[in-house]
Amino acid sequence: MFKEKSSMKKNLPLLLAVVLSCLAVSCTNLTPQSSVDPSTPLVIGKQGSFFVGGHNIESNNLSLVPAYAPSGTIAVEQMYVHYQSPVSPKRPPLVLIHGCCLTGKTWETTPDGRMGWDEFFVRRGYPTYVIDQVSRGRSAANPSGIVEVKAGKAQPSALPQVFGASQEGAWAIFRFGPKYPEVFKGMQFPLEAQEEFFKQMVPDWLNALPTPNPTVPALSELAQKLNGAVLMSHSQSGIFPFQTAALSTNGIKGIVAVEPGACPDPQSDMKPYIQMPILVVWGDYVEQSPRWAPRLKLCRAFVAAANQAGGHAQLVELNNVGFPGASHMLMQDKHSLKIATWLSDWLDENVKP
Amino acid sequence: MFKEKSSMKKNLPLLLAVVLSCLAVSCTNLTPQSSVDPSTPLVIGKQGSFFVGGHNIESNNLSLVPAYAPSGTIAVEQMYVHYQSPVSPKRPPLVLIHGCCLTGKTWETTPDGRMGWDEFFVRRGYPTYVIDQVSRGRSAANPSGIVEVKAGKAQPSALPQVFGASQEGAWAIFRFGPKYPEVFKGMQFPLEAQEEFFKQMVPDWLNALPTPNPTVPALSELAQKLNGAVLMSHSQSGIFPFQTAALSTNGIKGIVAVEPGACPDPQSDMKPYIQMPILVVWGDYVEQSPRWAPRLKLCRAFVAAANQAGGHAQLVELNNVGFPGASHMLMQDKHSLKIATWLSDWLDENVKP
Repeated sequence: MFKEKSSMKKNLPLLLAVVLSCLAVSCTNLTPQSSVDPSTPLVIGKQGSFFVGGHNIESNNLSLVPAYAPSGTIAVEQMYVHYQSPVSPKRPPLVLIHGCCLTGKTWETTPDGRMGWDEFFVRRGYPTYVIDQVSRGRSAANPSGIVEVKAGKAQPSALPQVFGASQEGAWAIFRFGPKYPEVFKGMQFPLEAQEEFFKQMVPDWLNALPTPNPTVPALSELAQKLNGAVLMSHSQSGIFPFQTAALSTNGIKGIVAVEPGACPDPQSDMKPYIQMPILVVWGDYVEQSPRWAPRLKLCRAFVAAANQAGGHAQLVELNNVGFPGASHMLMQDKHSLKIATWLSDWLDENVKP
Repeated sequence: MFKEKSSMKKNLPLLLAVVLSCLAVSCTNLTPQSSVDPSTPLVIGKQGSFFVGGHNIESNNLSLVPAYAPSGTIAVEQMYVHYQSPVSPKRPPLVLIHGCCLTGKTWETTPDGRMGWDEFFVRRGYPTYVIDQVSRGRSAANPSGIVEVKAGKAQPSALPQVFGASQEGAWAIFRFGPKYPEVFKGMQFPLEAQEEFFKQMVPDWLNALPTPNPTVPALSELAQKLNGAVLMSHSQSGIFPFQTAALSTNGIKGIVAVEPGACPDPQSDMKPYIQMPILVVWGDYVEQSPRWAPRLKLCRAFVAAANQAGGHAQLVELNNVGFPGASHMLMQDKHSLKIATWLSDWLDENVKP
C-alpha cells in the first residue's frame, strides 16, 4: 500500500537526521562515555550466529511420535554463539558466558528494560560473543535419555539429571536477600521486575553432561577461532575460562570471572593461569551467604597462588571500588552499566588489544 | 594497555570513514535494493529481548540435586522475543516464527554464513521480532515431568512427549531430496554446510504442551503490544498466525505462512481470516513429497474459501515467480535473499504500513 520514495530530495530531512545521528555515533566511537547512550543509534559492522563444537551421534531413541523416525543421527554438544561487532573494533573480542539455569539472555536487556552488557560492550568497541551453554537455550540437548525411558527400554534412574531452580531458592543464591522474600538493605537488583527476570530461568542439563563440560572445549575452539578473546564467565560457568586455559592458553587474552562458583584449586598447577590477566569480581553481601562466602575465600587463595607463581591476577569486591549493593546477578543490577564501565576500564588497563 | 584517544582531530580519517558508511546506510534506507548489502554497516535504532506470556506454577519435582531445592515456584510457557528496529521504521513490525525442531536461529545467519532474514528485514525497514517457541530455545521447558519419573514418583509413561528429528528423516521433510542422501535436481539449500545446519536442530516439546499451544496466545499478546504486526510462520508453526487470528484479529496486520504444516480447515468459519492480507508461500518439489503435497492442496482450498468469504488471501509457489529450487528451509537457501526481497515487495503492496 505504500511505495518507496526514491527521490533523495524529498527525503532530505530524514537523510539529515540519520546522518546526524550517525555522526553522533561515530564521534562517540571515540569517546566511550557517551557512546554507550542507548538513545543513540547502534552502528554494527557485522553480526550473526554460528555453532562451535558438537558432533554427530546415532540414536535409536529419538522419537515415539509416528511422524518422526525413532532412529537416526543427531548433533549434540554444539555451542550456539551470537555476536555483534562494531564497525572498526579497537578492543579485543569478548565472550560472555552465562551461569546456572540461565541462557545467553543473561547479558541482554535487563528485566526492567535497560540495555544489557551485550550491547554495552559493542558500544564500547568490543566484538561481543554471547553463548548458550551446551544443552541449554539454542544449544540442543539430547532427547534420547527421555525417549528411551518413556519407551520402557531403560530404567527411570537412567533419565538425565535435569533440574530447575525454584524462584525461592534462586532468591538466596542470587543474593537478593538472605532468604525469600527478605531483601538485603541497599541491594541493587530491580526486584520490581522479578517476574520478567524469573522467566529467564531454564532447566539445567549441567549434571547430565560428560566431564569436562563440552562448553569448555567449545570455548577453547571459539577463542582460537577469534584469534584471541577475553572470556567473561558468571557463577556456575565461573570455572570454565580457567578450565579452558588448562586445556590450552591459545587464544585467551584475559579472564574475567564474575562471582565464580569455583576458582582453580590454589594447590594445583598455576602455569595455565599466569599467562593472561585475570580478574575475579564479587558483589555485596557475600559474607552473609553460606553458599558464597567459602567460594570467595577460595578465590582469594587462588589469586594469591597465581600471583606468587608470577601471574597477573586480581580479586575485586565491587563494594571497594564504589559499587555497593551488587547482587549475584550484577549484570542486571540498577548500577549494571556503571559496573560494566569500570570493567571495561579494567580491560583497557590490563588486556593487550 | 591502550588508551582512548579523545581528540577528534587525530581521528578524522576514521571519523570520515564512519560518516561515509553511515551516509551510505542512510541513503540506502531510501533505496532498499542496496540497503540490504551486508557489507555496509547496520544502523539499529533499538534492540533487545523480553518475554511474553508465561505464568508461575508450584512444583515438588524441580530437582534431585542437593544444591537445588526439590520444591518451589517456576515460570513456564513464557515466550522469548529478540528484536531489532531500524532508526526510523517505515514498515510494520514483523514477527518471525520458526518451525519444528528448530529455534529462532532459523532466521539468523545461514549455515553457509550469509545474512539471515532477521537482519535482511531490519535493513529493509521492518522492526523485526524473532521468537523462540514456548518450551524451546530460550523459552523454558518444565523439567518437573522428568524429575518426577526419575524420582520414582510417577510412571515412565508420564514423561513428556519429547522427540528429536533425525538428520536422515529431516532430509526428506525439509525436501533436500526425496530421501537421504538423494538430492532434488536444482535444489538450492546449501548442502555443503549441512553439518552446521543440523546443529540448529533441538528436541521438540510440542507434543508435551497444552492445547492451544501457549505460543499462540503469546503471539496474540505480542501483536497487540506492538500495536500491529505481520506474523510470518514456518512449517510446524504455519497454523499459529491463523490460530492467533481466531483468538483475536487485534494487532494482526497480515499473515505470511511459509510452507505451513497446516492451513485452516476450508469448512471452518472464515471470519477471522478475511480481515487481513494473507500470503501462503510454497517452494519446489512439493508434489513429489507425500508429506507436503496434501498440505499444499489443503492450503489451496483454504485460500479459495477465504477469498470466497471476502478475504484477501494468496497462495504463491515460488517456482511461478522466478525462484525454482526452493527447499522447505527456503529462508536459508542460496537464493534466500532474493525470495526475501520478493516477500518484502509483496508486503509493501498488500499490508498497510
